[in-house]
Amino acid sequence: MKISRRDLIKVSAATAVLGTFSPASEAVGDPLPSWNDGTSKKAVLEFVRATTEKSSPKYVEPKDRIATFDQDGTLWTEHPLYSQAMFALHRVGEMAPKHPEWKTTEPFKSVLTGDREGISKFSENDWMEIVAVTHSGMGTEDFQALVKQWITTAKAPRFDRLYTELVFQPMLEVMKYLREKDFRTFIVTGGGQEFARVYGERVYGVPPEQVVGSSIVTKYDYVNGKPVLMREPKPFFIDDGPGKAIGINMFIGKRPYAAFGNTAGDQQMLEWTQAGDGARLMMLVLHDDGQREYAYGPAKGLPDTQVGTFSKALLTQANKSGWVVISMKDDWKRIYPFDK
Amino acid sequence: MKISRRDLIKVSAATAVLGTFSPASEAVGDPLPSWNDGTSKKAVLEFVRATTEKSSPKYVEPKDRIATFDQDGTLWTEHPLYSQAMFALHRVGEMAPKHPEWKTTEPFKSVLTGDREGISKFSENDWMEIVAVTHSGMGTEDFQALVKQWITTAKAPRFDRLYTELVFQPMLEVMKYLREKDFRTFIVTGGGQEFARVYGERVYGVPPEQVVGSSIVTKYDYVNGKPVLMREPKPFFIDDGPGKAIGINMFIGKRPYAAFGNTAGDQQMLEWTQAGDGARLMMLVLHDDGQREYAYGPAKGLPDTQVGTFSKALLTQANKSGWVVISMKDDWKRIYPFDK
Repeated sequence: MKISRRDLIKVSAATAVLGTFSPASEAVGDPLPSWNDGTSKKAVLEFVRATTEKSSPKYVEPKDRIATFDQDGTLWTEHPLYSQAMFALHRVGEMAPKHPEWKTTEPFKSVLTGDREGISKFSENDWMEIVAVTHSGMGTEDFQALVKQWITTAKAPRFDRLYTELVFQPMLEVMKYLREKDFRTFIVTGGGQEFARVYGERVYGVPPEQVVGSSIVTKYDYVNGKPVLMREPKPFFIDDGPGKAIGINMFIGKRPYAAFGNTAGDQQMLEWTQAGDGARLMMLVLHDDGQREYAYGPAKGLPDTQVGTFSKALLTQANKSGWVVISMKDDWKRIYPFDK
Repeated sequence: MKISRRDLIKVSAATAVLGTFSPASEAVGDPLPSWNDGTSKKAVLEFVRATTEKSSPKYVEPKDRIATFDQDGTLWTEHPLYSQAMFALHRVGEMAPKHPEWKTTEPFKSVLTGDREGISKFSENDWMEIVAVTHSGMGTEDFQALVKQWITTAKAPRFDRLYTELVFQPMLEVMKYLREKDFRTFIVTGGGQEFARVYGERVYGVPPEQVVGSSIVTKYDYVNGKPVLMREPKPFFIDDGPGKAIGINMFIGKRPYAAFGNTAGDQQMLEWTQAGDGARLMMLVLHDDGQREYAYGPAKGLPDTQVGTFSKALLTQANKSGWVVISMKDDWKRIYPFDK
């Protein structure tokens, strides 16, 4: 590209205007407008200051600025059931005509008869069976097309909104703010990597290569002479609990400076983050707002749950380790982007 | 940052100067000075033009510009033996005092007695055993420290140079050129991911999160209360052959636009790359320069080898598929950075 006289004039004019004001990014003011003032908000702001101001003794080079976020319950609503579990149940319904035997076989029978009580009692093995059957048998691209079709149309219970609308506005602000400060934001989810990659960029601004998650075995094969990665009904990697630290090391190869979660499945991710030197930020979202979202624990006397448990042991560790517990009720002005 | 009057003057001055010349990046001239003119060089230049010029019908958005490179034999010399295999043999020597039984047990006996003939006949299982023993039993950080110590001191046979000096200057130029054009360059190696991550950034400009490779199982554990990822003597993922396409999908989640390899272990990576639409570049390095590097095939009548075989079948597929075969002898002016 050659720079013409005309471009020169444009650049000079723009510079002259900018010269009298602060650039837009500084003029914006509060980077976390949906957060109430308090310990949680202050922790984020102080962490960013400590790691990104050149004069800070805890300054971190941009190339090493990594922040990791659990998804379910940390970035979006996970109650009454994880979105991906809802997708799996939907798939059972879609696939049922080709599986007449499901009418009389559990766990499929409960799904097909809409037995909520039965579904709520599914064991981990029941879920593994449902996920294996509904998430395999097709190429990766066909699977992503199925997810895309569902995620752009299916509505979540109670709010009657798309699942992707039930994202937490305050967390979107944290992600955006970190990215503005040259952090790269990764999703590190116990859910399916290939599932979250479908909408991660659109919903969170996180591109596929920054989504780490659980995966099943894929097999390199050919369909009509074209290579396809066929999804097999076998788990390959479980990105949960210790798996989150393992996954972070395997996929990113760098230790995060900040990590956000909400259950014991995020414990090792936060431990692994904290074990590095310099400034580190570890935060846990506590769902204590039954009015605007859901309230469950059982930490802090909140009702117990099978989905996204914040255990008392986790709260004890958080207090001992200096992890910041975010109260949705007290710390967040808004929960969802559509909230006033 | 506020822009001051003084900055304004600087910018205007700089713009005025630039206004009369092309910007520096254009003035540099040939981005591939170590390449002779010919089909290979032209293929790279034409691919970059087609994917990065805004007016091109095959223009690719910067966020999707992914290029993947095999390492051994594609980015650096792999003869007489892969660098990591040399590291493993070195580790056997280091560990031997604590394993008196190795004196009489194969495959260790051959290593300890320096039996080159015996080593050259090691089966894949022999190598697996050696790698498992020498690459496990420590935390990931301790392992990387061992690699760093070795890779910064050990000398490669014949050239008496550090292994990291035996990188191919023309390939470094391709990587640099692609990065200048907003491609992200990934190493996709059959070798150890954790091994190549130690020096990838320094040697190739490829950061840890852009190194995809084979890995062993790691276990989350605690040493003195601090979390550690312990390396276990069990393979986890083999990033070779079909594994390269699987690894690319798993780690990157995007299809490359360009892929570079040199053996049948790279075949599926190139197929997977080519199966996307738009402009795609697939290249294979042929080691046909025994004088400046090594000559082996057996394609094109070159001597057969066990290390980095370029088979006749691969050449047939390359010709059929329009993959570009790089002749080290004819296409490269220089092999190594230290060559005149």
